Formats: sequence, structure tokens, C-alpha cells
Amino acid sequence: MPERPTTTPPDLRGALDPHLFREGMSRVAGAVHIVATDGQAGRAGFTATAVAPVTDQPASLLVCINAAGRSARSVQANHAFSVNTLSAGDQAIADIFAGRAGLEGRDRFSVGSWDTLETGCPVLTTGLVAFDCRLMDSRLVATHFVIIGEIVAIRLGQAAPALVYSNRSYHAL
Amino acid sequence: MPERPTTTPPDLRGALDPHLFREGMSRVAGAVHIVATDGQAGRAGFTATAVAPVTDQPASLLVCINAAGRSARSVQANHAFSVNTLSAGDQAIADIFAGRAGLEGRDRFSVGSWDTLETGCPVLTTGLVAFDCRLMDSRLVATHFVIIGEIVAIRLGQAAPALVYSNRSYHAL
Repeated sequence: MPERPTTTPPDLRGALDPHLFREGMSRVAGAVHIVATDGQAGRAGFTATAVAPVTDQPASLLVCINAAGRSARSVQANHAFSVNTLSAGDQAIADIFAGRAGLEGRDRFSVGSWDTLETGCPVLTTGLVAFDCRLMDSRLVATHFVIIGEIVAIRLGQAAPALVYSNRSYHAL
Repeated sequence: MPERPTTTPPDLRGALDPHLFREGMSRVAGAVHIVATDGQAGRAGFTATAVAPVTDQPASLLVCINAAGRSARSVQANHAFSVNTLSAGDQAIADIFAGRAGLEGRDRFSVGSWDTLETGCPVLTTGLVAFDCRLMDSRLVATHFVIIGEIVAIRLGQAAPALVYSNRSYHAL
């Protein structure tokens, strides 16, 4: 039997417990990506799972990004970003871009093999796929920006097991 | 070695080949969800992988949804929807809500065990997690709406292997 419904009391409607939200979201398996940018504001990047395709004509995708972080400012100033979907072999890169190795800014790119396609944003040569995007739209929703990119180039990588994050740990699929 | 970069010719920039887009997106593993709605416009639902968390305060998520479909109209008229993350055991339900069983509208709910939480939208009792949402915002991007829901209730289901879609097939994780 499923567990009983967990709902907020009436006086807390509209303010769902953030811990419950995070517990719920931990049940949602997701590919792990590095979102990277370069340009006038310099190189920056971060690990993301909140990525989704939007439309195929024009080819576009979206990323949710913490508005308080350095990467949000850099993506907006550079007007471009890449989304690099990680293989299971690149878990160490996911940790670096999640800030777990103490590296910041361009120093995060010291590990891994990086190239560029159209926009000049770094793309990981060992990823399953890289989407090179020009910033189409950026919209603030409370603490996060929903950024939408038009995909101007794609690199298909070699077939390999995917890195998937689920239940607060990494898995190979 | 990764395959060589695949980019659009200069005269097609801004019009990336939709086939290449779909091939690229097929490399991105994703949880499989049923997005369901009920209310004034009636019951409707569809299978989705384009789902992402947005913010934890307020708890919110987004779904990309084809603007041409019946479900988009129903979600907007009902001002509410649920997102039900499937376990590997519910692959048949994913097929039904993707239209592969020939069922439409409320007939899709004839299979599976459905309940409601706060909004009255159907939630699947066998899902890994169900997010019950009030429609906060809906924004048209070319052919799709990006709909953002404020999560007003969450049901945590039993722990079970997740249903994950990757490389055009289902997997259990």
C-alpha cells in the first residue's frame, strides 16, 4: 500500500514545507548536466538536473537556475550557454560543478576535456550529448530564473551509460 | 573518441534540424510522469518527461506541454494539475497516457488506481511521488506552453524502482 497522503495543514496552504518538497523531488530520477557559459562575463558552470526540452521548432530547451548564484549572472551577460549531458564516467565532473571540490568559476574547467561549437561556450567532449544555445528568454520565478535557450548546434557523443541522479545518489543507466 | 561535432550549415542557423534535436534529446534520460487534470473542463492527462522543479519557496515545478493538444486546454481551464512520477511497474499506464492504447480523455483513467489530494486532480496511488499543483503561470513558447504549478500537496509513495525513458525505450532504475 502507498503511504498515506502528506498534505499541508490548511493554514499553511501556499507554503508547502520545503523539506517535503525536496523529499518528493528526490524520488524523481534525472539526467545530470553541466550548464556552462563563456563570453564577456567569463567562464562559469554548474551541475543541473532541472533541464527540459521545450519545442523542436525552433529547437529549444530550458534550465532552472538559482538567481543568487554567479552562474545566473554570467549566462545572462554572455547571452549563451551549453547543456552537457553526462555519462556515468564523468561523475567526478558533476561533483566539481556542484561545488563539492571547492573549485569556482573557470577553475572548474581544469578537469575534463572541453571544446566549443557555435557560441563559444564550453562543451564537454566526453558527454552523451551537448546542446549549444543562445539565450532566448530569462524569466524570474521567485528565487530562480527559468532560462530558455535556442539550440544552435548539437554534438552527439559516443554511446555510453548515462549518469542519473535519484534518491540522493548517482546511478549508471 | 566522441563523434565529430554535428552543427547546422550557416544558412540554417536558427533552424536546427528537428531530427537532430530529437536524436540529441533521446540521449537525455528522464523520469516518466503522468500529468493529470480535472475540474470544469473535465478529466484529461498525458505522459510527460519534460518536467522540472523550479523553486522550493514556494514549492513549484514546471511542465512543457504541446499547445495543440486537448490537455493544454484542460489544464488551463481547470487551473490545476497533478504530476505523478511512475514506478517501473506502471509502464502500461505510461503507454496509455501517451496515446498508444487508443484511449482518450477520461477513458485513460480506467486503468490504474486514482485518488485526489487538495485540488481534485487525479493522483496515481501507485506512483513514486505525486505533486498536486495549482496553476501559477502559463507561457506560450512557439508550439508549447511552459506551465508552472505551485505545489499544494505531495504524496510520497512506496519506494520502488523508477521508470526511466532513455534512448527511446523504458528502463527500470
